[in-house]
Amino acid sequence: MTILFAAGDWRWPTWEAPLRAALREAGLDDSALTLTASDPGAVEVMIYAPGGDTPDDFTPYTRCKAVLSLWAGVERIVTNPTLTQPLCRMVDPGLTQGMVEYVVGHTLRAHLGMDQLSRTRWQPVMPPLAGERPVAMLGLGALGAACGQSLACLGFPVLGWSRGPRDVSMIECHHGREGLRTVLEQAQIVVTLLPSTPETENTLDAETLGWLPRGAAIINPGRGTLIDDDALLAALDSGQVAQATLDVFRTEPLPQGHPYWAHPRVTVTPHIAAETRPATAARVIAENIRRLRAGEPLLHRVDRIAGY
Amino acid sequence: MTILFAAGDWRWPTWEAPLRAALREAGLDDSALTLTASDPGAVEVMIYAPGGDTPDDFTPYTRCKAVLSLWAGVERIVTNPTLTQPLCRMVDPGLTQGMVEYVVGHTLRAHLGMDQLSRTRWQPVMPPLAGERPVAMLGLGALGAACGQSLACLGFPVLGWSRGPRDVSMIECHHGREGLRTVLEQAQIVVTLLPSTPETENTLDAETLGWLPRGAAIINPGRGTLIDDDALLAALDSGQVAQATLDVFRTEPLPQGHPYWAHPRVTVTPHIAAETRPATAARVIAENIRRLRAGEPLLHRVDRIAGY
Repeated sequence: MTILFAAGDWRWPTWEAPLRAALREAGLDDSALTLTASDPGAVEVMIYAPGGDTPDDFTPYTRCKAVLSLWAGVERIVTNPTLTQPLCRMVDPGLTQGMVEYVVGHTLRAHLGMDQLSRTRWQPVMPPLAGERPVAMLGLGALGAACGQSLACLGFPVLGWSRGPRDVSMIECHHGREGLRTVLEQAQIVVTLLPSTPETENTLDAETLGWLPRGAAIINPGRGTLIDDDALLAALDSGQVAQATLDVFRTEPLPQGHPYWAHPRVTVTPHIAAETRPATAARVIAENIRRLRAGEPLLHRVDRIAGY
Repeated sequence: MTILFAAGDWRWPTWEAPLRAALREAGLDDSALTLTASDPGAVEVMIYAPGGDTPDDFTPYTRCKAVLSLWAGVERIVTNPTLTQPLCRMVDPGLTQGMVEYVVGHTLRAHLGMDQLSRTRWQPVMPPLAGERPVAMLGLGALGAACGQSLACLGFPVLGWSRGPRDVSMIECHHGREGLRTVLEQAQIVVTLLPSTPETENTLDAETLGWLPRGAAIINPGRGTLIDDDALLAALDSGQVAQATLDVFRTEPLPQGHPYWAHPRVTVTPHIAAETRPATAARVIAENIRRLRAGEPLLHRVDRIAGY
């Protein structure tokens, strides 16, 4: 029985050593880990990330007991009808830490008005303290909760929103359509960290962007589908939204000539906010393989109905 | 007996209401607060900040029991030979909060490489996590300790330095000349939050900047005198220092034509990092007046020998 690395040949050099180390650390035999499986029926576990040479037909993997995603977002695999095996998302402590740094950094950039600093003239403008700058955190999963709590520790009032009710310490939690309105009407900075599902598509559109106080800032390190791009560009042009920092897009890499590139109030970052970190993520993979063999419940198992 | 506001007539509109409110909140009579004292001998307490119309001869204030500075830095008054009254610095919780936001924000800006983001091309570059980015905090007073602890909470290893030995939780503390070398040799980002004294002048000079790993970033929200400007400009030009964010200068406003303005790797902020916030600072002033009248020790009293 083999552990198949089905996450792209080109990722193998980055991942092989951390995965072997993590498997050994978990008391497992790392010789089962392989980049190719001549017999799909011999695959016990598949480590997966989407890409050119990774499977899109899971039917031959008849004895595979779990598909373990290297990515937090599973929208490109969760709807695959041939996938009948349990699917687990990546919840990587290194990824969470990187996301917290990105979100706190770009929130403070907007809060302190770094982009508006004069490069030629002494113009003292004192920003308000964080306590006077409400932040909306759309999405209260592992990433949204961690980012919201870090912002709350720095003094920002954090208004959280999720589809269903949640209770997260240090965050004032709201849910449902009315809750979204309550949160956005107060938010000067909005962070979008929802999963990509049919329900979350265009969560920020012309109507909901209109609920924000004029001059709000948007930070999207979640998924490109969460924002209606045309509505955001219109809100930026009208001044309703003062600046947007975008890490994820409907098409990546963001195509040359896309209006986001040239827009003076848009900052494009190249999908770096939530990079899985091999050293920490490999330990999550190894722990799930240990659990599988011990008959314990898998971590971060995807709810196929909810889609994440 | 009067409480004299000797901090500049132009500051009176900003400060009068918060001071009166704080005095009443402390159970004191705010009618003693005044902007002018025809009889200097009737002044019991002086609220002070340097400026055009504030006293530089304290001799006539014969019955004044304390001079309470609105500023954290007292170098412009501490050496005044006519000042024999107890002098207290401002340690304003609002100022500390503002400083933490500035230091964490600009540290993350350097850490995440925000200034190096391409505005035209998709070039994924993943910064290391904060845990791999040691930060040096030069100065471990109220401001340095608070900023260092906030950075440590975000995951940065923080190496602290002060003239004498200190013990601050979450910070690896060093002191003395050898300690400075130990700290700087490891630091990828350096924050200077020392008081301005003869001993701290040019703490960062050609020699100490040379101790840093190549490509370090400097953030100075402390005092302009802490850095030898010519040495910093030379280190920026050679690449030894990759970027500098400076909030304080030997001459303020920073003169037009100063090389810092035009330097592509220098960010000038107009002395906004440690702005005293009237609402919170007024409570500190009122508490010291209450203590004075109750015969209790004053808060934040300046050591005239140390100079801060």
